Amino acid sequence: MVKPLSIAVAGLGTVGAETVRVLQSHADLIAERAGRPIVVTAVSARDPALDRGIDMSGIDWTVDAKTLAERGDVDVVVELIGGSDGIARELVSRALANGKSVVTANKALVAHHGSELAKAAETAGVALGYESAVAGGIPIIKSIREGLAANRLQRVYGILNGTCNYILTVMRETGRAFDDVLRDAQELGYAEADPSFDIDGVDAAHKLAILAAIAFGREVDFDAVHVEGIRHISPIDLEYAEQLGYRIKLLGIAEISDVGIQQRVHPCMVPVATPIAQVEGVFNAVVAEGDSVGPTLSYGRGAGAGPTASAVIADLIDLAAGRTAPVFGLPASRLAKAETASIDKLEGMYYIRLMVIDRPGVLADVTAIFRDHNVSVEAILQRARDPDEAVPVVLTTHDTSEAAMRQSLAEIQRIEAVIEEPRMIRIESL
Amino acid sequence: MVKPLSIAVAGLGTVGAETVRVLQSHADLIAERAGRPIVVTAVSARDPALDRGIDMSGIDWTVDAKTLAERGDVDVVVELIGGSDGIARELVSRALANGKSVVTANKALVAHHGSELAKAAETAGVALGYESAVAGGIPIIKSIREGLAANRLQRVYGILNGTCNYILTVMRETGRAFDDVLRDAQELGYAEADPSFDIDGVDAAHKLAILAAIAFGREVDFDAVHVEGIRHISPIDLEYAEQLGYRIKLLGIAEISDVGIQQRVHPCMVPVATPIAQVEGVFNAVVAEGDSVGPTLSYGRGAGAGPTASAVIADLIDLAAGRTAPVFGLPASRLAKAETASIDKLEGMYYIRLMVIDRPGVLADVTAIFRDHNVSVEAILQRARDPDEAVPVVLTTHDTSEAAMRQSLAEIQRIEAVIEEPRMIRIESL
Repeated sequence: MVKPLSIAVAGLGTVGAETVRVLQSHADLIAERAGRPIVVTAVSARDPALDRGIDMSGIDWTVDAKTLAERGDVDVVVELIGGSDGIARELVSRALANGKSVVTANKALVAHHGSELAKAAETAGVALGYESAVAGGIPIIKSIREGLAANRLQRVYGILNGTCNYILTVMRETGRAFDDVLRDAQELGYAEADPSFDIDGVDAAHKLAILAAIAFGREVDFDAVHVEGIRHISPIDLEYAEQLGYRIKLLGIAEISDVGIQQRVHPCMVPVATPIAQVEGVFNAVVAEGDSVGPTLSYGRGAGAGPTASAVIADLIDLAAGRTAPVFGLPASRLAKAETASIDKLEGMYYIRLMVIDRPGVLADVTAIFRDHNVSVEAILQRARDPDEAVPVVLTTHDTSEAAMRQSLAEIQRIEAVIEEPRMIRIESL
Repeated sequence: MVKPLSIAVAGLGTVGAETVRVLQSHADLIAERAGRPIVVTAVSARDPALDRGIDMSGIDWTVDAKTLAERGDVDVVVELIGGSDGIARELVSRALANGKSVVTANKALVAHHGSELAKAAETAGVALGYESAVAGGIPIIKSIREGLAANRLQRVYGILNGTCNYILTVMRETGRAFDDVLRDAQELGYAEADPSFDIDGVDAAHKLAILAAIAFGREVDFDAVHVEGIRHISPIDLEYAEQLGYRIKLLGIAEISDVGIQQRVHPCMVPVATPIAQVEGVFNAVVAEGDSVGPTLSYGRGAGAGPTASAVIADLIDLAAGRTAPVFGLPASRLAKAETASIDKLEGMYYIRLMVIDRPGVLADVTAIFRDHNVSVEAILQRARDPDEAVPVVLTTHDTSEAAMRQSLAEIQRIEAVIEEPRMIRIESL
């Protein structure tokens, strides 16, 4: 058997510890599949004394992760520290510069600095693996970059954040409010103490920017992603969605349009009969649409120690076996700049919910504004009648432009009888 | 740019012609992703004069496919002829023996002779790609073999035949009978003039045997697959399934059990809320369950020229880029013999439908037989009452052994008031 692949693991949190544990417990299986053993030579962590349930004999310890990039006895640095800058970025840059391949689960790092790191990896002739950074255990990077390599992709979209999907699923099933379900998710460990990265859509946007790069052969452009989260989704919207034949999902969508590449993360109404609508709880799913293959969907656990370790080790096995691909599917020098289309250029259907004082003339005022902006209303629902009290009015539109919709809503908000900020959810025909 | 990869395509039916067409239309994209151009040097087909919508300039023609294996100017032979023996087998064996890699869409060939061909490929130091043989455009071979390589797999199952899934979907939606919907499927081109390979489960069994080999690191063992088709499914069973909260799907299931590896293809009732139950029409889906990743599902078009060409070309791009993996995930010499568990050893729940003459005592006779074989009945449904006429009686059971179930049904069939062969559909808890 040839020389083992020697790795250093930076960061021994739940993912790091699980990665080392599986490398140890499945050592024989992995060596057979990889063609050679994968051995952990060194690790870094803040507290060496903690019991992590792994065998540390023969493994070097350090508290200074950056030194892992300098070791002559390490082939691959596995970066599991996190954060788009700071130690993680420094470690990865140094490792690549020193001719070591890198495997990372760090979506923020790849989303913000992926193009620069890809160039550094290519210059050094080494690999940069990030399968675990997108959709956890689902091998979606490999599937798109290699499995669908014969295709031009038109669109890639998915449920990229399990925390949000869990919250929306429970809200729909129980009718409970967002804050209430978020608290539950925090207690169950599905949401962080500071949940904003998840629920404001930032985490999903990191992953979407990476998917867009490999799908379309463009540089990663996180700043071009339009991001909205799920804080404003209320049980009443989930009820109306159900009644209209939709589910509400936080989707990341990247697509090639006539005016450039659209990248957006926001709550969507999707037809209940579509596969993506059926993805519930903490699961993730990604749909990639190719010109030969048509739509494909990959589904699985998008987070957690086991699924993330599974993807980290898959990258390591590829490296050990000598299987490499350009970081974003094409040589870094050939990646085009992303021509970004602003969200204003979006064309689509919309769900609007207004809280209005129930009095004559309000609907006339609202519909007149839509008419003036050339927005074609498909349906209006006002179930409750409660003179001079606040009632919800729901409208859906035919295809219209985001710009016209935004202008309409700004004017509608100024109508005196409209007592809350209008809620808008885009309806996606997937 | 390095030397092009020179390929020969044997068989220019719809898949072969589409493969050449995409290689030509996407030549630049494919060359960038593969790191070098992929050029078609020679093709074989029975009728050279047919217009297939592809540019034949610079491509050699032959009617004798076998000669493609002997050409010094060809690196890879793409076998799209079909059939488990005959010309396809001879061509593939000769190509491997001559040191050429092979890409094939031929599931029958790989299911029957995969282990032998894998050894031949390894001896010659070349690759054998068959991504297109299982689930069409879905990159499931790559996903399991490389993407989930860190996992021990416990079970892999899926909807592996789009023809059957289409027929079952339409039967459920319309209430029409099997023969009637099959005729439609034939007119639409979803089923062959002789549909038996599809509807009797043989095609799905070919694919399952291949999936089992890569999932469990065993030799391909098609003969060990228990196969039943969908001819006996009637609209009344689909109705009862719906009422009981199930969908009927033709599944291929391979799993590691205490008594060996179970491989089986048969109609199943699956809970309607599971992702696999939601796969409708001609689509395929494969679920792989790993010890780290948990369940993953891959979904897409399982047949057709475009999806199949997509997978064939993905294999070619991997070859051009130098990405190879052992044919069934492990070196051929390390693949264990499959220890097969007979279907009699299966433990599970069952749906039974009897047609009985509605008279006192019949249910007592039936339930006594189940009691004698230690089969625990969960529910009995007899909706219609029609004294002395034939009415359907449906029973579901708790977990029981297949052997006990078969003995029970043999005895039940001998009851005079039971006027048709009992129908049995296994209920899967997925």
